[in-house]
Amino acid sequence: MNVLVIGTGAVGSFYGSLLSGSGAQVSVVARSDYGHIRAHGIEVDSPLGAFHFTPAHVVNDARDLPAKPDYVLLCVKVTQAVDRVALLRSALGPETSIVLIQNGIAIEEEIVRAYPNHRVISGLAFICVTRTAPGQIWHQAYGRLVLGDYPKGVSKQTAALCEAFAATGITCLATEDIVSARWQKCVWNAPFNPLSVLSGGLATEDILAQAGEGLVRALMEEIRAIAAANGHTLPDDTVDRNIDSTRKMPAYKTSMLLDYEAGRPMETEAILGNAVRAARAAHVAAPHLETVYALMKLREKQIQSTLDPPG
Amino acid sequence: MNVLVIGTGAVGSFYGSLLSGSGAQVSVVARSDYGHIRAHGIEVDSPLGAFHFTPAHVVNDARDLPAKPDYVLLCVKVTQAVDRVALLRSALGPETSIVLIQNGIAIEEEIVRAYPNHRVISGLAFICVTRTAPGQIWHQAYGRLVLGDYPKGVSKQTAALCEAFAATGITCLATEDIVSARWQKCVWNAPFNPLSVLSGGLATEDILAQAGEGLVRALMEEIRAIAAANGHTLPDDTVDRNIDSTRKMPAYKTSMLLDYEAGRPMETEAILGNAVRAARAAHVAAPHLETVYALMKLREKQIQSTLDPPG
Repeated sequence: MNVLVIGTGAVGSFYGSLLSGSGAQVSVVARSDYGHIRAHGIEVDSPLGAFHFTPAHVVNDARDLPAKPDYVLLCVKVTQAVDRVALLRSALGPETSIVLIQNGIAIEEEIVRAYPNHRVISGLAFICVTRTAPGQIWHQAYGRLVLGDYPKGVSKQTAALCEAFAATGITCLATEDIVSARWQKCVWNAPFNPLSVLSGGLATEDILAQAGEGLVRALMEEIRAIAAANGHTLPDDTVDRNIDSTRKMPAYKTSMLLDYEAGRPMETEAILGNAVRAARAAHVAAPHLETVYALMKLREKQIQSTLDPPG
Repeated sequence: MNVLVIGTGAVGSFYGSLLSGSGAQVSVVARSDYGHIRAHGIEVDSPLGAFHFTPAHVVNDARDLPAKPDYVLLCVKVTQAVDRVALLRSALGPETSIVLIQNGIAIEEEIVRAYPNHRVISGLAFICVTRTAPGQIWHQAYGRLVLGDYPKGVSKQTAALCEAFAATGITCLATEDIVSARWQKCVWNAPFNPLSVLSGGLATEDILAQAGEGLVRALMEEIRAIAAANGHTLPDDTVDRNIDSTRKMPAYKTSMLLDYEAGRPMETEAILGNAVRAARAAHVAAPHLETVYALMKLREKQIQSTLDPPG
């Protein structure tokens, strides 16, 4: 199995190293960490063990690879700062499957429009993993993947990739309905990611204490209603189960908070903006979500204003 | 006219100095700035002129005054950190009118319950004024006062105080319905104060640009609906007029943002909490306001967690 990972942040480095460890030929497209990874590879510190990943090839651009991969794993954040379509362009051979391991709602459409003749496998990672320095990955906990063909089904390519991941020791689930799985994950992401940022840095357990739980539940119910209006009915106990499982987690900083604290672009549009637009298109009232989204846009504007030179 | 001002922040120092300049005998209760003001008085830099205010008496506690005042102007922020009832206790003679020059909704009830035999004059200040250092006040713009007896009416004491203020050169309006005036002011305060903080420090004009205007309007409409449900119908064009006048203002940092940036307690409960509670009591849906209120409580919790020693 020939795999290319685009993006050597936490997610791409971790899952790429797993596949490499179980026998796949895994190359990486690195951007800011190119020099370091080319010289030193990638170190992963994980409950699964400490291991070293030496990619088959480390390139700046996929056109420098000797062959086209079977799978290209796109593991970059979904933000306006990243042109995902351009990143994929030189990576695709006629048989290459595009695998998106990314957060958010409706993030596949742009890729499907750009590459209509390619299989798009949509994936979700349930993991706590951090890039602590170039080529240094700290896998703290969890690791489950959920993969499915977009918009529906499980092709043999998806099944084969899932088996390859399962052979590495993590859980990989192939689902017939990845879009429902995305809405399900959004139930958690839509409240906790922005609230961690707007609160100024609270971890999940502090958000749930006192004033936060009511707002978290209201946001989760709105996501459920939007999903249902879009044909993806989530179980009745979705909100309770999300609250309960979050209470059992150790205090956890969301990925959006980590991006915020590191000064990186946040996935506001992928997680919140796309959910809000889905609500508006389906005429579902989502006032709590609209409020949080508008506040995140103001927060981003304020951050931008501190970066722009005065004009 | 014998006046006591409690609180030598921007508002108390400014209005006290005006009354003193037009012949009233004005004393002050100072807390943190006591030493400076006792030694040097108060300097006011204003479009009305630069002037010096030497209080008749500067005390730590009103019990040290030789006589009880005709009016006690309570000019402290309404936060959980300040015990307004205790501050008034030693200031009141049998004929003393209590004058609250403070932001917020339903802030009179606590005072009326504690001092049921005293006249309570409720007041709103429309002013840009800042305490730049102990005893140093910078009056930037505006200055209008609106006064009325709580809960209704204009007594001769209120009329006399209003005349005294008008004689100083500012506009002072006596209103028969100060509670409606408070809701009217809350239409502006409820969006702009918390949004300036939650955005990370945007001024009014930046909040109104792009994503902010829709949220500002939604919050303003909710305040109008809550006010109406509580018997205070505000004009149909209230929201448009508030948006238009804010666009004409110079870029303006709200008082809550100034408090936030200075690490002082914010008037979250007086402005948002009391409005939310009024909505719930009247069964008015206010999801945007509930969201902003919950986020401000999370923000305050995060600030507190950085101040508390780890337990």
